[in-house]
Amino acid sequence: MSNELEKLRKELDEVNVELLELINKRGRLVKKIGQIKEKQGMKRFDPVRERNMLNHLLSHHEGPFEYSTIEHLFKEIFKAGLELQEDDHRKALLV
Amino acid sequence: MSNELEKLRKELDEVNVELLELINKRGRLVKKIGQIKEKQGMKRFDPVRERNMLNHLLSHHEGPFEYSTIEHLFKEIFKAGLELQEDDHRKALLV
Repeated sequence: MSNELEKLRKELDEVNVELLELINKRGRLVKKIGQIKEKQGMKRFDPVRERNMLNHLLSHHEGPFEYSTIEHLFKEIFKAGLELQEDDHRKALLV
Repeated sequence: MSNELEKLRKELDEVNVELLELINKRGRLVKKIGQIKEKQGMKRFDPVRERNMLNHLLSHHEGPFEYSTIEHLFKEIFKAGLELQEDDHRKALLV
């Protein structure tokens, strides 16, 4: 394998770990938000807020991915966050 | 809305933008890797390399997400990267 390829793959591994850490940081934030919403009797899923988050991202997007790809990836990330809040809710009911 | 919730949402928006920037940074790296592989006649999709990247992530994962969720999200991210390489390949054929 060329040195250049090896160097890029190392960089890619580092970016992957940074992404992992950010996704988990997002998970911790989403859990905290879920707890506050639960206390205040607010619904966990808020399509308007989700749309606003996506619009905020759209205004920062510069490529190389198509925006539709970014939207797809973030919808998956949002869904995972929602599931995390729902798990917390189920656990709270079991206490 | 409580101040606490508003503060957390602002933090979440910032994390979303950081994620967006990292995903796009990853896209730029993946494009470069694709160009080198193309030149060297290597296949774009390499399941062993993908498994190695996931194992590398597993060793860094601390939650709160289940690892299965992380694996699902990264498979989507990897797929988007592969599509980016394939687009480049198609464009190269059209030149």
